[in-house]
Amino acid sequence: MNPVVIAIDAMGGDFGLSVTTPAVIAFLNKKSNAAFSITMVGEESQVNQAIQDAQGQSLLASGKLTIQHASEEVGMDEPPAKALKRKKDSSMRVAINLVKEGTAQAAVSAGNTGALMATARFVLRTIAGVDRPAICTTMPCIDPTKSVLMLDLGANVDSPPELLKQFAVMGMVLARATRRIESPSIALLNVGAEEMKGSEKIKGAAQLIGATKLNYVGFIEGDELYSGKVDVIVTDGFEGNVALKASEGTAKMVMTVLKEEFTRSWFTKINALMAKSVFKRMQSRLDPRSHNGATLMGLNGIVIKSHGGTDSVGFEYAIVEAATQAKRNIIGQLAEGVALFESQANMPEEEAAHNI
Amino acid sequence: MNPVVIAIDAMGGDFGLSVTTPAVIAFLNKKSNAAFSITMVGEESQVNQAIQDAQGQSLLASGKLTIQHASEEVGMDEPPAKALKRKKDSSMRVAINLVKEGTAQAAVSAGNTGALMATARFVLRTIAGVDRPAICTTMPCIDPTKSVLMLDLGANVDSPPELLKQFAVMGMVLARATRRIESPSIALLNVGAEEMKGSEKIKGAAQLIGATKLNYVGFIEGDELYSGKVDVIVTDGFEGNVALKASEGTAKMVMTVLKEEFTRSWFTKINALMAKSVFKRMQSRLDPRSHNGATLMGLNGIVIKSHGGTDSVGFEYAIVEAATQAKRNIIGQLAEGVALFESQANMPEEEAAHNI
Repeated sequence: MNPVVIAIDAMGGDFGLSVTTPAVIAFLNKKSNAAFSITMVGEESQVNQAIQDAQGQSLLASGKLTIQHASEEVGMDEPPAKALKRKKDSSMRVAINLVKEGTAQAAVSAGNTGALMATARFVLRTIAGVDRPAICTTMPCIDPTKSVLMLDLGANVDSPPELLKQFAVMGMVLARATRRIESPSIALLNVGAEEMKGSEKIKGAAQLIGATKLNYVGFIEGDELYSGKVDVIVTDGFEGNVALKASEGTAKMVMTVLKEEFTRSWFTKINALMAKSVFKRMQSRLDPRSHNGATLMGLNGIVIKSHGGTDSVGFEYAIVEAATQAKRNIIGQLAEGVALFESQANMPEEEAAHNI
Repeated sequence: MNPVVIAIDAMGGDFGLSVTTPAVIAFLNKKSNAAFSITMVGEESQVNQAIQDAQGQSLLASGKLTIQHASEEVGMDEPPAKALKRKKDSSMRVAINLVKEGTAQAAVSAGNTGALMATARFVLRTIAGVDRPAICTTMPCIDPTKSVLMLDLGANVDSPPELLKQFAVMGMVLARATRRIESPSIALLNVGAEEMKGSEKIKGAAQLIGATKLNYVGFIEGDELYSGKVDVIVTDGFEGNVALKASEGTAKMVMTVLKEEFTRSWFTKINALMAKSVFKRMQSRLDPRSHNGATLMGLNGIVIKSHGGTDSVGFEYAIVEAATQAKRNIIGQLAEGVALFESQANMPEEEAAHNI
């Protein structure tokens, strides 16, 4: 069996090679990842040097790790249209080209979200039945054994109900494939749990999704995002982005206050020192790095967006996400799922139930 | 000078009299509140009994505290339309009637938000130049010396740009009156800081608000809600509600994880005991009770909505908010502000600047 190849935009992100290289090497050095090989895309001599510096020569020698030259880089603040038109040999674009050609089965980039989305859409196109791709990510829940998939997180604003229905199907496929949940429960983010509440687009989406065979359970409010009550939360990209970023802002405030109060005096500092293991476990449960790797869902190929400011531990999680999706053939499953839910409205109930 | 009278929906909220009564008595017993008197609205004998039980007889005797009978109560889950049509003698409705008649200068209720908004709108109507009232609240910032006003938090969904402009004016007036900021900075909640980003309604609102003499500073993203960078954040009620509730959900998750990790073993429990003062100060900085009391802004009268599940400490903060707004004549200032910004578009620049 041929190994599954993952293309890495080696130059992307706030820290470029200094983060991507150690993450790639750590990933490939794990025995459990023996079925994968990686192509790092970037300026060849720089990539080669970074691999040497990180003791990755043997991986190059064995062929588990290869380098694909790309002469340009997309800047973190570069407008998507400019990146798309003028940087045809960027590390980001070439990595996505490898997926398009079938040379790689997934691409990972920590580069600028807008440029990545524009490039991926242009090169890969959306699969049949999906009008626009969505950004999808996994978030932690209060119960550490649970997590929740949420989409869209900012790729689309003013999404009509039909698009929200497509997001629901995509979320279902991703949750089923990566989290092994047979029939994931799906909720729409709204301002109240009652049927009459909400914006026109949400009420329209509730009707559309409710009429499918998806396991649609109704509305969920912002304070229950992390409750673990549902497997998939569907939202327009505007509200999804607001919810995600408001959560980031809140977590930052709480952690800052905690830190300030624990460093107020020598007594509290001793307290903090004693409680080091508590803070460590707390951090590991809330660590955004362990949920790093958002999926650009709905494309003809797997593209994973890493947080731009993550470190190599976080970037490795994004590679793992790409590997999991490639291994489980998420694109094939997505195409099947979308086709099923497009035609299902006209199918007799028993037949539809049988097909799920 | 006549005292300022505050009408209290004594039966409202999850806990009714057991929360409202001690809050009222604590408020009136403070010397700094000598200029205020309170009318508790509810079933007379029950209210009277609650006041006796809480040692408030002397306040009744002195006339600082009076009781206004109301035979009905609005349930916490009662549909707004039903409360409005069928409960004309509810404690909520009668308290708002007192404001309408001028017998009271403000009303406070911990009752169901939908019913309170519907009743207050019906009885008091909006002031000239305001199409719909908004829910407005103050939120803490990372810097404890700062806070931020945010509106709307859920009264209106699908708000057109013109309505968002009205919210901006209302936020400016409230921040200026209650926080003594001469020219409060105002931002629109959006999914990115760049001009081209966002939904159609937000882009339209940016143009409208940017054309006024308001101190409009541009877009703000969800992760900066608590940064203290701006004084007022304007948003449609859908996104505002999502942001607020996502923040509540996140804070709850972080605090739950903190608690779970500190009670994991006898050693961590001793740690937690030693750090008691740290947690106390942390809680006081993040205490949602100290920001209790949302304003139904834009009505012909002051109506403050307390959180339904708050305790007497929290409810007293809501009374203080009502007292502050009544003392500073927020309704008169709002009418002036709205009139000013309605006409200003046609005013020469120097004249407009002079009027602010």
